[in-house]
Amino acid sequence: MKIGILTSGGDCPGLNAVIRAVVLKGTTTYNIEFVGIRDGWRGVVDGDFFPLTRHEVRGLSKVGGTILGTSRTNPYEGPRGGAENIKATLYAHHIDGIIAIGGEGTLAAANRLYNDGINVMGVPKTIDNDLRATDYSFGFDTAVNIATEAMDRLRTTGDSHKRCMVAEVMGRHVGWIALHSGIAAGAHVICIPEVPMSIDEITAQVQKAHDRGRAPLVVVSEGFTLTGMDEAYSDKGLDAFNRPRLGGISEILAPEIERITGIETRATVLGHIQRGGSPSAFDRVLATRLGLHAADVVAEEAWGQMVSLKGTDIVRVPFEDALGELNTVPLYRYEEAAALFG
Amino acid sequence: MKIGILTSGGDCPGLNAVIRAVVLKGTTTYNIEFVGIRDGWRGVVDGDFFPLTRHEVRGLSKVGGTILGTSRTNPYEGPRGGAENIKATLYAHHIDGIIAIGGEGTLAAANRLYNDGINVMGVPKTIDNDLRATDYSFGFDTAVNIATEAMDRLRTTGDSHKRCMVAEVMGRHVGWIALHSGIAAGAHVICIPEVPMSIDEITAQVQKAHDRGRAPLVVVSEGFTLTGMDEAYSDKGLDAFNRPRLGGISEILAPEIERITGIETRATVLGHIQRGGSPSAFDRVLATRLGLHAADVVAEEAWGQMVSLKGTDIVRVPFEDALGELNTVPLYRYEEAAALFG
Amino acid sequence: MKIGILTSGGDCPGLNAVIRAVVLKGTTTYNIEFVGIRDGWRGVVDGDFFPLTRHEVRGLSKVGGTILGTSRTNPYEGPRGGAENIKATLYAHHIDGIIAIGGEGTLAAANRLYNDGINVMGVPKTIDNDLRATDYSFGFDTAVNIATEAMDRLRTTGDSHKRCMVAEVMGRHVGWIALHSGIAAGAHVICIPEVPMSIDEITAQVQKAHDRGRAPLVVVSEGFTLTGMDEAYSDKGLDAFNRPRLGGISEILAPEIERITGIETRATVLGHIQRGGSPSAFDRVLATRLGLHAADVVAEEAWGQMVSLKGTDIVRVPFEDALGELNTVPLYRYEEAAALFG
Amino acid sequence: MKIGILTSGGDCPGLNAVIRAVVLKGTTTYNIEFVGIRDGWRGVVDGDFFPLTRHEVRGLSKVGGTILGTSRTNPYEGPRGGAENIKATLYAHHIDGIIAIGGEGTLAAANRLYNDGINVMGVPKTIDNDLRATDYSFGFDTAVNIATEAMDRLRTTGDSHKRCMVAEVMGRHVGWIALHSGIAAGAHVICIPEVPMSIDEITAQVQKAHDRGRAPLVVVSEGFTLTGMDEAYSDKGLDAFNRPRLGGISEILAPEIERITGIETRATVLGHIQRGGSPSAFDRVLATRLGLHAADVVAEEAWGQMVSLKGTDIVRVPFEDALGELNTVPLYRYEEAAALFG
Repeated sequence: MKIGILTSGGDCPGLNAVIRAVVLKGTTTYNIEFVGIRDGWRGVVDGDFFPLTRHEVRGLSKVGGTILGTSRTNPYEGPRGGAENIKATLYAHHIDGIIAIGGEGTLAAANRLYNDGINVMGVPKTIDNDLRATDYSFGFDTAVNIATEAMDRLRTTGDSHKRCMVAEVMGRHVGWIALHSGIAAGAHVICIPEVPMSIDEITAQVQKAHDRGRAPLVVVSEGFTLTGMDEAYSDKGLDAFNRPRLGGISEILAPEIERITGIETRATVLGHIQRGGSPSAFDRVLATRLGLHAADVVAEEAWGQMVSLKGTDIVRVPFEDALGELNTVPLYRYEEAAALFG
Repeated sequence: MKIGILTSGGDCPGLNAVIRAVVLKGTTTYNIEFVGIRDGWRGVVDGDFFPLTRHEVRGLSKVGGTILGTSRTNPYEGPRGGAENIKATLYAHHIDGIIAIGGEGTLAAANRLYNDGINVMGVPKTIDNDLRATDYSFGFDTAVNIATEAMDRLRTTGDSHKRCMVAEVMGRHVGWIALHSGIAAGAHVICIPEVPMSIDEITAQVQKAHDRGRAPLVVVSEGFTLTGMDEAYSDKGLDAFNRPRLGGISEILAPEIERITGIETRATVLGHIQRGGSPSAFDRVLATRLGLHAADVVAEEAWGQMVSLKGTDIVRVPFEDALGELNTVPLYRYEEAAALFG
Repeated sequence: MKIGILTSGGDCPGLNAVIRAVVLKGTTTYNIEFVGIRDGWRGVVDGDFFPLTRHEVRGLSKVGGTILGTSRTNPYEGPRGGAENIKATLYAHHIDGIIAIGGEGTLAAANRLYNDGINVMGVPKTIDNDLRATDYSFGFDTAVNIATEAMDRLRTTGDSHKRCMVAEVMGRHVGWIALHSGIAAGAHVICIPEVPMSIDEITAQVQKAHDRGRAPLVVVSEGFTLTGMDEAYSDKGLDAFNRPRLGGISEILAPEIERITGIETRATVLGHIQRGGSPSAFDRVLATRLGLHAADVVAEEAWGQMVSLKGTDIVRVPFEDALGELNTVPLYRYEEAAALFG
Repeated sequence: MKIGILTSGGDCPGLNAVIRAVVLKGTTTYNIEFVGIRDGWRGVVDGDFFPLTRHEVRGLSKVGGTILGTSRTNPYEGPRGGAENIKATLYAHHIDGIIAIGGEGTLAAANRLYNDGINVMGVPKTIDNDLRATDYSFGFDTAVNIATEAMDRLRTTGDSHKRCMVAEVMGRHVGWIALHSGIAAGAHVICIPEVPMSIDEITAQVQKAHDRGRAPLVVVSEGFTLTGMDEAYSDKGLDAFNRPRLGGISEILAPEIERITGIETRATVLGHIQRGGSPSAFDRVLATRLGLHAADVVAEEAWGQMVSLKGTDIVRVPFEDALGELNTVPLYRYEEAAALFG
């Protein structure tokens, strides 16, 4: 049996730990042969494979990023894409099945390929924690730790200068990183995509913290929507060079907070540092366990499923059950935390 | 309503985050008044209380240890101990109930007091993760991160010198810290209390890793039992000064491994560094959520229960369901990981 | 003898360690009484003082920021400023002298006050390492560590996606943080204020690294000047909201690199996280030693000087020798590192 | 020109950064060919060499340990050792000179070989900072950071339980790690080899800290001598299994402190975690600069010297000037710190 492994979408701490676990268990327990697929679906389409033995995965549990490379290629696009072409490519390379490690988009493509007759199974990967079918995904814990540590640092500056600090974290559609890092760092306002707020609601909380003698900390997801700012938003897309703005919502929030409250306010966009580097122990264990179970799934040829975390157990979920709605922050979780801001 | 809070048993990262969350929510949402109880049950028995307002809990989510102090005092012992004395003491101080943050022993005492008519509720605390009624307890994730980081360091020394490194971690009765940190660090042997092994089984795995060109890493829980070493163990209690040995099982293992395999072997006992210092983000979030829910329990006067983590939810568990058997590592979890050692 | 201590300018890891060491040594060895001055020169002008005993400085060696607060107030400005007013204020509070912990601007003000007859001594503080009269100042090592760790993380993302990553670090006038963190993280291009470069020089190095199969890492000081971009710069001041841009030079560099080389490029502005949080051990030791020696200077009433690091020794430097030219990166240090980019 | 590189003695964070810098500068600037020598002098004696190109040193600045391996072999011992044999071996492999990265012993051997006509230059390596001819050596800063962070953790446990914590750090002959980490962590007693003390002197300081309401922190170098304990020491060599004790001086100190003061006391031996893992930014920069200058020395064929740090400059020191007395902690540095313990 010969199996290809790919990683697709944004990189995420723990990808290499999954790859290592799959290969270690697959080769020693099931005698499976593995190939690495370069750069996600791009490598499937292009037939870009290389042998992946236990030697190649040595020491990988703690290494960030992915040794396989990644891309955002759609396997159904391009002259060599589509299920029939891919079947032919896999057949030509004697590849019996694919382990696809990726997020919503990757798993949707995997499901479509599975329905088109290709042997695929999935491992969920989302640093934002936005997949419904798993309690947590690897990478999220690392991102929350990095964001929390950064905010611990920002707070000392805020306290020394009596400033309001605004920290912008990842989360285009869901606010999990903001919620957890905000709770962990003792934020006074947490702004997430699921709960749009007006600038007045935000500054009211900022002012309240300031009045208690605190240097306010505002945590904001990149995908947060500030209500009542339509006009401002219409201009948001371009900077003074007429190029897309690299900055984010925090760069709109910070000057508004300062203007309204009179409290000196500074924004920090944490950006890419949240997704790189060595995974936390939690993420290494989770990624490794998912990889071990993925090897079992492959050995059983139980295609069309992904492995996932439920409580403390690794379970299997059919692709169709895993896709669809995102795992947004439920209101009760947001309100639970709101008691801290009182 | 006036409530006392105590922390009891060994210290644990996240204790202060629980205290902060209880006080923040309790004061702002429920208008409860809090007092800190000094040094666990000792402070209950001695009536050693102090006011605990939101001012005292500022910035505590990231602070290790416990501002309340802790001890291993049994509330039923001593001239001022026992349910009737304690009732009188609480009554004299107008204290309506107690939040007890602690492990198996603390919660057992809390349950007995509750059955004797005292208002007590519990928050589970165990760095070893040995309580059945919660998926995880705060402190465990921090300990696993510290142990993993230490092992990452040990491995570079092992690799440079082609040595076998033995790392001894906490875990008197259960092997969770060893299992998780061992998986995370890519250990070649994991020795836990739940799975006694002979020195020959251990050295066989050490030799196998060495033969593959690896510097073997052995992780061992302090409570691991080496089988077939009765005679050696009988002497174990005393060192050359006729005082109890501070060293641990790793100091027996390392020279045995070296003697049998001929591979230079070094032991490191991680010891107290695993339980101190700033909690991980995971532990801060978990501790904070437990504290928030503890405030709800108190407000509802739902005594005789503890709060706990089930999946991603905080739930309530009656004391009697929480006590009894320890949360040991199930065999399937150990065997799951064993595939990595192949 | 009664001495006031102030911290002025941007906050910096190690300020609290200086304060602690001054107070510990001053009180126990010299029986000096200390007062904290709130918010830098602002507190001097306003007479905003509070008692500072060894109790207040407990445990401060590891705490980031400054418990005294800080500001950028000029002591010669405002109705209560100026040497004569300040003399009167100090006299009224029985304060015999001031320890001013700050950078170029703070020390220049301290020198002027000293020349106007006020007892002042200085402790150099510059996170950018831009003061000539000290080999290193506390805070710099912490900032370099934080920047290096962030770049270690950025590199795994760059490698996984085959991207060029641009990291913008502090350094308005000098490039020390960029130079040291760039060397430490293995950067392929280091852009510092002392060495203006054209976009073509930068992209040539980026391309060379890319051609060797590396994901290029570009480190740029916030004060770096890109030559031949006058037109672009003229627009730089404002964003689409007609407010000062919060983003920096990296947000100009990244799209230009991508446009010219065709390599996907991402910018990260590390910003405020570089100056907050717990100091590194190096900075704690340096700050503590400077504080201990500052207590000696005060006890000897050797005013008009600052303490500084020369090699491994703490020495004293008259204010006038310490001011003037900045400590820029000498060309030979930049060229030394350039051999790494080959 | 073909040059061999070796690392000898205990491993140390920064070794790989030296190797990388030598190879990068040597190949690109001077067109030198490099070979790696396996396991220190052992590889010289055995002719165990392998090609070392810039490809092999990629990404090494942040990697702990040494890719060359290390040993404590003496090049003048064994049937293939001695200057004449080594000359023949180097000649047979067309190796023109050796870069020896190591401590006192390694450099002494290098000097002897140089005097016997072999082209050798040195790079100082000592995690203990015990070499006279360099202000600091790489590895020391990392070790101090690790020890400091560990003590930060120990302190929260000490505070929670009102215990005295004893931390044992590296330093067989010199107390630099204990001095710097002790200052950084705010220790109440620092015990170093240069300053023998009696148990009564130690417990007096412990008691004083305890009386001020502090949980005493005692830092002790492994090579510290407790005076007046001759009888106890005579037994010290063996444990209850009649094997050399792995524990250290802290395991003698802790029970004595507890016995005399009545304060519960716990010992932690930090051990091997101090020397492994990723180097701090300071050590990466220092190691890289030493490596860059070593390449210059080799290109100039300026044999018989080592590179070293003086102030902020890298300089060259003849072997004979570098050897001999160790760089002990001078008394004024110890007394400087003692003001903190008052």
